Amino acid sequence: MGIQITGIRHAVPPQVQTAAELAPLIGQTEEWVLRQTGVARRHVAGDLRDPAILAAQAARPLIAEWGAPDLVLYAGAVPRQGVPDTSLFVARELGLSGIPCFSVNAVCLSFLMALKVAEGFLESGIYRRVLICVAELASRGRNFDVPEAAALMGDGAAAAMVERSADGHGPSGFEGFRLQTWPEGAELTGLRGGGTMLPPDDPQVTHADHRFHMDGEGLLRITLPHLRRFLKEFFAEHQLTPQDIDLVIPHQPSGPGLKLLGRWGFPEDRVINLIADYGNCVAASMPMALAIAQQTGRLQRGQRLLFLGTAAGLSIGAGLFRW
Amino acid sequence: MGIQITGIRHAVPPQVQTAAELAPLIGQTEEWVLRQTGVARRHVAGDLRDPAILAAQAARPLIAEWGAPDLVLYAGAVPRQGVPDTSLFVARELGLSGIPCFSVNAVCLSFLMALKVAEGFLESGIYRRVLICVAELASRGRNFDVPEAAALMGDGAAAAMVERSADGHGPSGFEGFRLQTWPEGAELTGLRGGGTMLPPDDPQVTHADHRFHMDGEGLLRITLPHLRRFLKEFFAEHQLTPQDIDLVIPHQPSGPGLKLLGRWGFPEDRVINLIADYGNCVAASMPMALAIAQQTGRLQRGQRLLFLGTAAGLSIGAGLFRW
Repeated sequence: MGIQITGIRHAVPPQVQTAAELAPLIGQTEEWVLRQTGVARRHVAGDLRDPAILAAQAARPLIAEWGAPDLVLYAGAVPRQGVPDTSLFVARELGLSGIPCFSVNAVCLSFLMALKVAEGFLESGIYRRVLICVAELASRGRNFDVPEAAALMGDGAAAAMVERSADGHGPSGFEGFRLQTWPEGAELTGLRGGGTMLPPDDPQVTHADHRFHMDGEGLLRITLPHLRRFLKEFFAEHQLTPQDIDLVIPHQPSGPGLKLLGRWGFPEDRVINLIADYGNCVAASMPMALAIAQQTGRLQRGQRLLFLGTAAGLSIGAGLFRW
Repeated sequence: MGIQITGIRHAVPPQVQTAAELAPLIGQTEEWVLRQTGVARRHVAGDLRDPAILAAQAARPLIAEWGAPDLVLYAGAVPRQGVPDTSLFVARELGLSGIPCFSVNAVCLSFLMALKVAEGFLESGIYRRVLICVAELASRGRNFDVPEAAALMGDGAAAAMVERSADGHGPSGFEGFRLQTWPEGAELTGLRGGGTMLPPDDPQVTHADHRFHMDGEGLLRITLPHLRRFLKEFFAEHQLTPQDIDLVIPHQPSGPGLKLLGRWGFPEDRVINLIADYGNCVAASMPMALAIAQQTGRLQRGQRLLFLGTAAGLSIGAGLFRW
């Protein structure tokens, strides 16, 4: 039993916005952006409004190499539209018809959860080849009056093809997994519009309600003690230490957030850190880190990976994964 | 191996709107509403904007009876807000903290997919008790200029507690499953706003973009041939006929839609039909039908159920389930 990610790709829109270009828009200096967020540049969607186009761009080479999937799982936080869900728009872009499609949403941890969901479907034998895809056009949700959140966000997409290890692949897959959610963090970051609570045609609803908000300090205050205990318990459960991890594939919350990993014993050279070049791409960050780790030769079969991240909510998730 | 739904409940907002009350709002007669949709009355949320409150109302008695779940899976089509996803707001309403939460979205088939996802988690042993919950406040998305869609919609919620059959329960669970998606139906019904394609603060975006639209005829034209072949293949695969099904738990698309089941060989008295009293409650319809079947004494352990439905997309899903 077990699953293997047989292919992983990413895609970004061509337009780049540097910290120097963004700074005046949010009333800050380039130095402030770099110090607060660590984001030197990020890709931005510009006029592109359809995440399915970007997700399909990441997925297309995987289908060319491995063939059509039996299941398309979309794993993004912010959808293309209210109904139907984004998965089938990606399938439409890819020319897939008759293939089951649905979406999983665990905000920034959506890829990890989709991988876990794919494992269940693959191990039960219903499906043999699952395409997980995600695209986030987070730049479109920026509120320039919330400088820190606006300075963090970037756009990007990724796709993974997942099969059963038994189908001719080496032993690989999850060796450990944990997700926890503390809803007391629900108001600390997010996007209040876009649902039934604040309908867009309610005149009381403001521009800011349709944009990302973030209480950075409040978020840090609630996250740190939970994360410390979470990691301690996770490593104790698996009788491992951070030194036993070959490569950490983290969500990319912020430069300072990624720096914390060093304090908890993960050597810097074993952590994939994309924040300077891509920013926080919400649910796309984690699979983009995996794709770029592979493209830069840092991923080797047999390595023990740790998928690790936080998500608005607050959620913390970790997956110990044999590559 | 196998899973058991140990408890299933539903909840509706107290306010009721009859066909006679709705008819003048959409420029039609009561008779037209009844003939076109079969919906004599439906519950409407009124001032309630938070689906998590209604979902928690359905879930609370299940937690009182079975204890706190290990996982909360939200299974709705339209969220409470953009970010974070609705699952953790339900957990917050229920006073759960530290319990993993995430969402599954397959539009009107979300409950069936969440049940399948729960099966994967339960059979792998990671979790032993999964709470699936859903609430839809579809009345809030009605466009009175689209009479047929507006006359179909109703509000409601449901929750299910799911455990492993092995944990002291009799043999039960999935005996068959199939989902298919044909994205060529993507534009036939849905809600175009609420995502990145039509951002709410774009002045070009209209009131109608934030409301359900539906091309009823187009939808029927694409659905019928797919559904006919889907059912034929599904029954052939499982060497069954519609007469072998003890009870059909269908999505509730419309009165005429449910009548079609008779044409395909399902006797009317074995189909749970709530359309007259509740309307189409989107993803809540299927689990509400299950809850009401149980409350009215029509569900018996050992029965062979068929979960069956269509979803915007177009998707068709079926689950053969031993109750």
